[in-house]
Amino acid sequence: MTVFDDGIVLEAQGNGVLRGRTIPEWANMVGPYGGITAATLLGAIELQPDVHGFPVALTVNYLAPIVDGDFRIRARAVRTNRSNQHWWVELSQDNGLKATATAVFAVRRETWTDTELQAPAVPEPDGIANASADFGLVWPRNYDMRFVEGGLPGPGAGENPSSTTTLWVRDAQPRPLDFAALTSVCDIFYPRVFLRRGQFLPAGTISFTVYFHADQADLTEQGDGFLLATARAQRFAAGHFDQTAQIWSRAGTLLATTHQLVYYKG
Amino acid sequence: MTVFDDGIVLEAQGNGVLRGRTIPEWANMVGPYGGITAATLLGAIELQPDVHGFPVALTVNYLAPIVDGDFRIRARAVRTNRSNQHWWVELSQDNGLKATATAVFAVRRETWTDTELQAPAVPEPDGIANASADFGLVWPRNYDMRFVEGGLPGPGAGENPSSTTTLWVRDAQPRPLDFAALTSVCDIFYPRVFLRRGQFLPAGTISFTVYFHADQADLTEQGDGFLLATARAQRFAAGHFDQTAQIWSRAGTLLATTHQLVYYKG
Repeated sequence: MTVFDDGIVLEAQGNGVLRGRTIPEWANMVGPYGGITAATLLGAIELQPDVHGFPVALTVNYLAPIVDGDFRIRARAVRTNRSNQHWWVELSQDNGLKATATAVFAVRRETWTDTELQAPAVPEPDGIANASADFGLVWPRNYDMRFVEGGLPGPGAGENPSSTTTLWVRDAQPRPLDFAALTSVCDIFYPRVFLRRGQFLPAGTISFTVYFHADQADLTEQGDGFLLATARAQRFAAGHFDQTAQIWSRAGTLLATTHQLVYYKG
Repeated sequence: MTVFDDGIVLEAQGNGVLRGRTIPEWANMVGPYGGITAATLLGAIELQPDVHGFPVALTVNYLAPIVDGDFRIRARAVRTNRSNQHWWVELSQDNGLKATATAVFAVRRETWTDTELQAPAVPEPDGIANASADFGLVWPRNYDMRFVEGGLPGPGAGENPSSTTTLWVRDAQPRPLDFAALTSVCDIFYPRVFLRRGQFLPAGTISFTVYFHADQADLTEQGDGFLLATARAQRFAAGHFDQTAQIWSRAGTLLATTHQLVYYKG
């Protein structure tokens, strides 16, 4: 069991109800890292006996901070079609609902295929230092993060005209990639407003979407190697910005595209 | 009442329940145009007496074709915070659930603001012909669509290396822009696989997300003028592709960014 596996453990209690708990290794500034929450919600669906197909789309909304301790998940298939299945998932604690998710699982079939985006041209990860300790937080240490562009702003960094961050990332404790781990990596980017403004500011993800392009063969090929992750913001306005990002395999396959809306102050 | 207003009419019955109906003017190949459904779901939230703030994020999942006739919507605020509110909305017909939505509404506040994307450089709409009749469908006639790039492929178009479509678009019956109308325009793009492959193929949106950057002042400034809409696909694989798009005001303000996952055959 790696720290990632520990972070998404759920105990199924039947009828779509599951029990889980936060662990201190995934602590963020307030509550757990959003990526581990999203991975846990996806995992709750994967554990259902009636699951049909593989994930193609996931949207997680973060309603309120998850407090340290136990939580309850309820996963419900709201519609099952021949070729896909739609899910609604709720995560609650004693003091209310904390996160919700919708997901689409689908049967994948052979079709015409093309990747229109190009992966960023970057140096190999081997010569780049792991910067995860620079965050001064607990959860980043679960990853090996090697920034190619747009690393965490240091003291006195000043404003930056670009919000683009590109990094190589993998689990610090090697573990073969699966859909849950890919989901978690989709939230790996620190808030883009930090980079633009050269300082840490109050910020948090409100809504997070992943489109999964990977199939099981892509995940198997990737194994426990580095992923290439790149993100940028599009507009910052009136306390909210959006971010769009891509996760590429080491071999250059676009495994997931992911978007989020983030609130910020400052 | 314009055809857009007719298309989103709902009768509130209390406790978050609303009744609506499809109208023939919004007919697509199967069921209504997805944009009018998304606008109707957003409108259902806006009609609730306890609504708090303005839309910042919306995700609609299309579960099954909506058949011509009546439908029922149920909108429920799953969490209300001081500065935002989270919604769950279901659209059902006698034969089951057809669409679901999650939405985040929020209070907008003054912050540092920046648009990192640049609007495409395009000619003015005045010299471009309205191509909405070329679709051979009913709903496109509700819009005035002037393609700058990536128009509907004609007979024998052949494959295209780019999936980018950029167009000027406004309601054919002039109507001031609001959040519902902006939502509908976010789905204006015909499936990107048609453009890449130079032919019509079976395709349909599964999951659709809008991030609203516009505030009321932006909408008022836009009025009933042309919007500049641009979209491209990122990856086509195993029966699904994703699309990312932006909607700009005539004055060059980024009003919304929008993403969708689409299934396709062929």
